[in-house]
Amino acid sequence: MSAVVLLTDDAELVEELRQAFAQVAPALCVLQAHQAGAAEAEVAACWFPPPGSLQALPRLRLIHSVSAGIEHLATAGSLPVLPVCRVVDPEQRQGMVEFMRWAVIHYQRHFDLALANQRQARWQRPPQCPAKQYRIGVLGLGSMGSAVAQDLAGAGYVVRGWSRSPKTLAGVDCYHGDSGLQHCLAGLDLLINLLPLTTATAGLLNSQLFAALAPGAVLVNGGRGQHVAAADLAAALASGQLRAALLDVFEQEPLPADHPWWRTPGITVTPHMASAASARCIASQIAENTRRLATGETLRHRADPALGY
Amino acid sequence: MSAVVLLTDDAELVEELRQAFAQVAPALCVLQAHQAGAAEAEVAACWFPPPGSLQALPRLRLIHSVSAGIEHLATAGSLPVLPVCRVVDPEQRQGMVEFMRWAVIHYQRHFDLALANQRQARWQRPPQCPAKQYRIGVLGLGSMGSAVAQDLAGAGYVVRGWSRSPKTLAGVDCYHGDSGLQHCLAGLDLLINLLPLTTATAGLLNSQLFAALAPGAVLVNGGRGQHVAAADLAAALASGQLRAALLDVFEQEPLPADHPWWRTPGITVTPHMASAASARCIASQIAENTRRLATGETLRHRADPALGY
Repeated sequence: MSAVVLLTDDAELVEELRQAFAQVAPALCVLQAHQAGAAEAEVAACWFPPPGSLQALPRLRLIHSVSAGIEHLATAGSLPVLPVCRVVDPEQRQGMVEFMRWAVIHYQRHFDLALANQRQARWQRPPQCPAKQYRIGVLGLGSMGSAVAQDLAGAGYVVRGWSRSPKTLAGVDCYHGDSGLQHCLAGLDLLINLLPLTTATAGLLNSQLFAALAPGAVLVNGGRGQHVAAADLAAALASGQLRAALLDVFEQEPLPADHPWWRTPGITVTPHMASAASARCIASQIAENTRRLATGETLRHRADPALGY
Repeated sequence: MSAVVLLTDDAELVEELRQAFAQVAPALCVLQAHQAGAAEAEVAACWFPPPGSLQALPRLRLIHSVSAGIEHLATAGSLPVLPVCRVVDPEQRQGMVEFMRWAVIHYQRHFDLALANQRQARWQRPPQCPAKQYRIGVLGLGSMGSAVAQDLAGAGYVVRGWSRSPKTLAGVDCYHGDSGLQHCLAGLDLLINLLPLTTATAGLLNSQLFAALAPGAVLVNGGRGQHVAAADLAAALASGQLRAALLDVFEQEPLPADHPWWRTPGITVTPHMASAASARCIASQIAENTRRLATGETLRHRADPALGY
């Protein structure tokens, strides 16, 4: 079977993946780029691949992201015209559902105020807003977004979803395309972003979008940092158009210690913790696609680089 | 129809209830204790009734708590031997379910660490513990506890429940009685208390109980402040046997500003915000029981003062 080369500068991830491959596919040859034989690899497993690293593999036949997203592949430069696959981990989906459920209850039930009040020993019971009156929007209805939207609808919230192409989800009012976006956003109490990062979605979370939400709405970004127009977010928080923003993803990660968002009132920073595919799942799915490549079977979880996901 | 007298020192609550009764039962005569005609009342709607206030009503036939609990009635002194009813609000149950779901995810996914890290601009991804490996116990399987246990089981957690008498709940390992308590507690990652306050349950959350949980477990108290042995809780947090405690109820409420729990590392104080029956629901249920009292129909939501709930 052909070799898999790991293309990333993240040494911790390399170690995790090597161990996972050893467990789930011990016969598979897994190498780092500098190792003998790496130039013969037909499969590249990538996480922010170093510039030129993909282009340096003459026998490459499959570019595999180790995550659900593929936008990080661009760090290698223009991609060779080859199949691109990503990892879809059901447990990762559950992690995202948990993260978003926490975020929704946190703001719906004003835990943010309660935690701030504790620091001043202030006893103040916050208003209760029943779930059935709390309006949530989910941008992006892929595997993650669909699961989140349906979980929240099941918990009794008013849920709208938005995606590029039409979708149907039980209990969720689904909108799509440019014309559907404003209908989805109008008067929302809380907006969850789970869009893939593409040229069409970069910077989408801007002043115009914030203005469509209910005054004092909350933004939760679980997509990518580049979705947020930073100055617009700061302005919306300062004006009160947004009451709070929970940001889990950033243009630069780790978020530098001197970045103002760590200390901006209303912003909660979490360290890209919403969910990650397990190393075991990543290794299994890449090993399986490597096998399929060898036998000519259809690859699983193909992405479309033109769409960006 | 007979009059209802409101027995409480909480002026805000009185005003809320008067407005709610005016909406849902405009024909009902609702009085405060000092008003003309109050001495003729057959129904008392109580929240920490002033000492002697119940005993001063010669025509009293029904003692009605305005909450799910009845232990606060004892502030009036020994209760007259009369039916005691409480309020059971389905929306209050949902509020409790939301509160406890937030608490579980908060600790399972280490949001407490993430929020603390933000204050130091520290980027550190916490470990992920899948729900199916997170062991939660729920003490008290009444209306609230059952709903919470089943919600958590539905979300994929390992859930055990404990109650005085045997219960059966789908997806929940149920234990009961003194002998069942240790089995329920053994090795739990997080313990939720939703017991009623009785002589048998006061002080139950003590060193012995904490020692049965997994090292570094979390306590969430949504019952009553008197369930907690305060010195034992402080010791368990100091030793690390408990990693954290989320306290929503206190012996004295509001919790005094100089109480150490506001500032004890590991303790999160919330202002008895988990859930409250709506004034509208309280007024409806008391009006309905007042009607039933007049017609001789069976009263709804009878409590047993001997059991304490």
